[in-house]
Amino acid sequence: MPGMIQSIERSSAVLRLLAAGPDRLRVKEIADALGLPKSTAHSILRTLEHVGFAEQDPRTARYRLGRGLTELGKAGLDVNELRSRALDWADTLAARSVESVRIGALQSGSARVVHHVFRPDDTTQSMDNGLIIPAHATSLGKVLLAYDAPAADAVARAGLDAYTRRTVTNRRALAGSLGEIRAQGWGGAVEEWEMGRAGIAAPLRTFGGLVVGAIGIYGPVERICDSRQRPRPALVELVCATAQSISRDLTGPRS
Amino acid sequence: MPGMIQSIERSSAVLRLLAAGPDRLRVKEIADALGLPKSTAHSILRTLEHVGFAEQDPRTARYRLGRGLTELGKAGLDVNELRSRALDWADTLAARSVESVRIGALQSGSARVVHHVFRPDDTTQSMDNGLIIPAHATSLGKVLLAYDAPAADAVARAGLDAYTRRTVTNRRALAGSLGEIRAQGWGGAVEEWEMGRAGIAAPLRTFGGLVVGAIGIYGPVERICDSRQRPRPALVELVCATAQSISRDLTGPRS
Repeated sequence: MPGMIQSIERSSAVLRLLAAGPDRLRVKEIADALGLPKSTAHSILRTLEHVGFAEQDPRTARYRLGRGLTELGKAGLDVNELRSRALDWADTLAARSVESVRIGALQSGSARVVHHVFRPDDTTQSMDNGLIIPAHATSLGKVLLAYDAPAADAVARAGLDAYTRRTVTNRRALAGSLGEIRAQGWGGAVEEWEMGRAGIAAPLRTFGGLVVGAIGIYGPVERICDSRQRPRPALVELVCATAQSISRDLTGPRS
Repeated sequence: MPGMIQSIERSSAVLRLLAAGPDRLRVKEIADALGLPKSTAHSILRTLEHVGFAEQDPRTARYRLGRGLTELGKAGLDVNELRSRALDWADTLAARSVESVRIGALQSGSARVVHHVFRPDDTTQSMDNGLIIPAHATSLGKVLLAYDAPAADAVARAGLDAYTRRTVTNRRALAGSLGEIRAQGWGGAVEEWEMGRAGIAAPLRTFGGLVVGAIGIYGPVERICDSRQRPRPALVELVCATAQSISRDLTGPRS
């Protein structure tokens, strides 16, 4: 039918075949059933396996439905997997930026720090792992909200508390700020939560562009920002490059 | 990741977003979340809706997961829907071929007649609706098996009873016959079930090429076949054209 995306139609047919069970199916059987070249069926199956919707038995090479499909309602990515995939990149970002690094994810509508790397110096710092941070007042939180409309709605409806005079407390202003983050691909927040502190964050994406977290740096305004109190371009670039590297890992082959 | 089909990855991300619920999502919210142009998100959503994996609320235009996904394990197409979609086409085929027409589907591994149109003449005929026919000995049944490897295996394992001396009772010969059907897109059976009778059938496909049934004509050998006892090309063409028309309807907009 015109306007329909053929590979999506085909993958839905493959999923129905696999769901018909109970037998697992060979690539050739699936290709035969749908009248597809074997190579096409193989590409579809590999992609479905990649996103967790199909599983291949390594012994028989036969396919069945994947757990990603039956557990569709659960989080797209386990926080532990996110953390373990991002660990090394977070350390590298901390070393290069000489700032503390946080990885955040939305959990039950709240922005939570799921991994924290201290600033690599001798200052005393408190561990933020598990900390819930105000989503509308931090770069990490705003980046998470920018790609999750229901969460952004819920946060706005719950009321936007002011932490400093620079906290965004107006719903339309927040929506504008989130739109800007989407347009530029990263977010900054300068003294919106704590006076004298600023952050820069960027989204972590998995298959199909799905945002599953954010990574960012947080530190004194004079180090994070330039003389006009705007995030330093070199640091923005560093955060964005790190986020892209992690995203590449998240969409790469499963370990 | 190289080798992966981007639109399938994206559609999996859309499904995860919809599954995250409970809120229904606007096209723009989905596009924003995945960093896609709105038109791309719209195409993906329309296709997902088309295959039953997403549903749009006509009042709010927002999307949620479709029942096709939660009922994935059930039959790809309800037999009643198949029948109602094929009704008029089956009548037309009977009128044009002047033969009786049967639509069949696999149900619990058996080939069952789900719709029967009498040959348009004054002969006495018995209604075959609901009849289970031997899958390996009829054109309708063999077409159904050709596109369902597990069913073909089960039928072969259960033992291939001989109805006539021309029934295919050898497993390898049956597999060869099914391969031929897939290669040519239709199947014939001459005196394999009843002496003096022959059939021609072709697959009915829905989204993505999924075979959900078969349609065929069945009648006296001298009418169905040419002088060399081979299905008449004009009748083969008529059956195939009808099957294609029904398939187009099955993949068209839902009524």
